[in-house]
Amino acid sequence: MTIKDVAARAGVSVGTVSRVLSGSPATSAAARERVRSAVTELGYRPDARARALRSARSNAVGLLLSDVRNPFFAEVAHGAEQAALAASYVTLLANANEDTTQQDTYLEAFLTQRVDGIIVAPQGEGSGNLRALEQARTPLVFVDRTVEDFDVPSVTADNAQGVDLAVAHLAAHGHTRIGYIGGPPSVSTGRARHDAFLAAVASHGLDEDPALIAVGDFRSASGSTAAATLLAGRRPPTAMLAADSLMAVGALGEVRRRGLRIGTDLALVSFDDIEWFKELDPPLTVVAHDARALGESAMRLLLDVIEGRPAESVVQPMRLVVRESSTGRPAD
Amino acid sequence: MTIKDVAARAGVSVGTVSRVLSGSPATSAAARERVRSAVTELGYRPDARARALRSARSNAVGLLLSDVRNPFFAEVAHGAEQAALAASYVTLLANANEDTTQQDTYLEAFLTQRVDGIIVAPQGEGSGNLRALEQARTPLVFVDRTVEDFDVPSVTADNAQGVDLAVAHLAAHGHTRIGYIGGPPSVSTGRARHDAFLAAVASHGLDEDPALIAVGDFRSASGSTAAATLLAGRRPPTAMLAADSLMAVGALGEVRRRGLRIGTDLALVSFDDIEWFKELDPPLTVVAHDARALGESAMRLLLDVIEGRPAESVVQPMRLVVRESSTGRPAD
Repeated sequence: MTIKDVAARAGVSVGTVSRVLSGSPATSAAARERVRSAVTELGYRPDARARALRSARSNAVGLLLSDVRNPFFAEVAHGAEQAALAASYVTLLANANEDTTQQDTYLEAFLTQRVDGIIVAPQGEGSGNLRALEQARTPLVFVDRTVEDFDVPSVTADNAQGVDLAVAHLAAHGHTRIGYIGGPPSVSTGRARHDAFLAAVASHGLDEDPALIAVGDFRSASGSTAAATLLAGRRPPTAMLAADSLMAVGALGEVRRRGLRIGTDLALVSFDDIEWFKELDPPLTVVAHDARALGESAMRLLLDVIEGRPAESVVQPMRLVVRESSTGRPAD
Repeated sequence: MTIKDVAARAGVSVGTVSRVLSGSPATSAAARERVRSAVTELGYRPDARARALRSARSNAVGLLLSDVRNPFFAEVAHGAEQAALAASYVTLLANANEDTTQQDTYLEAFLTQRVDGIIVAPQGEGSGNLRALEQARTPLVFVDRTVEDFDVPSVTADNAQGVDLAVAHLAAHGHTRIGYIGGPPSVSTGRARHDAFLAAVASHGLDEDPALIAVGDFRSASGSTAAATLLAGRRPPTAMLAADSLMAVGALGEVRRRGLRIGTDLALVSFDDIEWFKELDPPLTVVAHDARALGESAMRLLLDVIEGRPAESVVQPMRLVVRESSTGRPAD
């Protein structure tokens, strides 16, 4: 269906249809009425891609999530999307599934859809399409994670502060052997939290045993494996810190299978404040950042870039929410 | 940046660039090399929208989720997206946030992006853009939910069977007053599960007290409110069935605030088998359907429609996974 079909149905010229659809005042009331009826009858829909080829904006932005099944990123997506709608932009989401190849596939898809800008929670060291995006000067913002040597504005959390809060809290409860279930070194939050953990353990005078560190991939099965490794050690930890919620749920499964009880036999603290964590028994102590606010800030930053306003990176503070999993008794 | 810039940089004609980019054999090795160097140096990217205006396919499909923060739909999205990638399609996701206005906004966005087809977990009674989609003969598949009077292939779960399994199980454990936390009547799964609950309560000879029914909106806060209403009644239920996982987590919070313990004071069964439910104490009994398989089936069905193959709706069976929340003792 084209504008010609609308013109034929309305009995007017293609030029008249075009003027009516673009809101030009150089049309008669009768022509407007006939064109609008024809549009309705035919179900005609102007092709936004053809329009976008001529105009500058599509009013669509892309948000590439690391993992749609991670509740943290789902909340980031919700925040970003609501902020976009408030500014009359739609958000197309895609899922990298913690995989750089899939990240490349979807960055390519966003580019071919000619979105006005892209928010990425990046994985990898700056793969092909991420670099191409930066070079093409496509408006780009990083959320939660960054990539070294990329000059891209970002909204991230203060990982070093978050890790230190958790380690200081566990140290204050008498723990000297804290097991760490970390994220992958190919992701900035994986690296930052790992380095912060080493620094915090040293600064609080705790046991710097390398056997207390296990690396996962931010997905649940890897948390289970990491917890198994830590707990099978000759001198197992008395507390564990998991670098994201999915690895924490994996670790919980492993702890349960071993017949241990969180809170009394073993303390557990997790990154990311997921609604379920409050409902666990015992409820889980978390290093929390406001995922929804992270998404909202990232979207506002992207709209700043798109619309040519100054764009400054933002680092959000983290906070510790103490619950029974790390105290062995109700924290309230 | 256009094909003309590439031609100028390569020192060849626009026609040569076009032939090289389309893979035509009617080009010299030297011309191919020069064009490819120019493309790399300039970071030129052929405009897929312009290409799609000429060709039939964009190889992108849209998936409109009811709520990106609902782990059930996140798993559906993951399944659909993996099935699409296996067939060389990319999946653009969008979030209706259980809101028909937002659903309309994103259906419009998918249409203007000219995706090859759309999967929707629909809300509402068939709002404007949903009807427009059907009339425009855009390849369309419903997942999890349907809309009355829409002739659209769908992949859904056998809700009546799932509800009956849960009610029969609770009846077998001696419960006669089962509270029901239902979904909204504007959603097909909300209606189907409600009707099935009434039928199951009648067929198992249980108490048909209307005060045992509370309606939510499939989001967590509404589960909390519904549980409060049910538990504040003159004769509160001894068991509750929640029609989705988010309302179940809301209900869990309310039960905890009242100082009751799931499993011993009150049985709880939820729809949707979320990974966290296994880690709760006690673990939650669920009416499970395979969300990932639901997404995969819906995508394969959409690709059948897009590629002109026969498309048959699918109804997946549900199954009951019994855990301690409904038995008061370990089920294993």
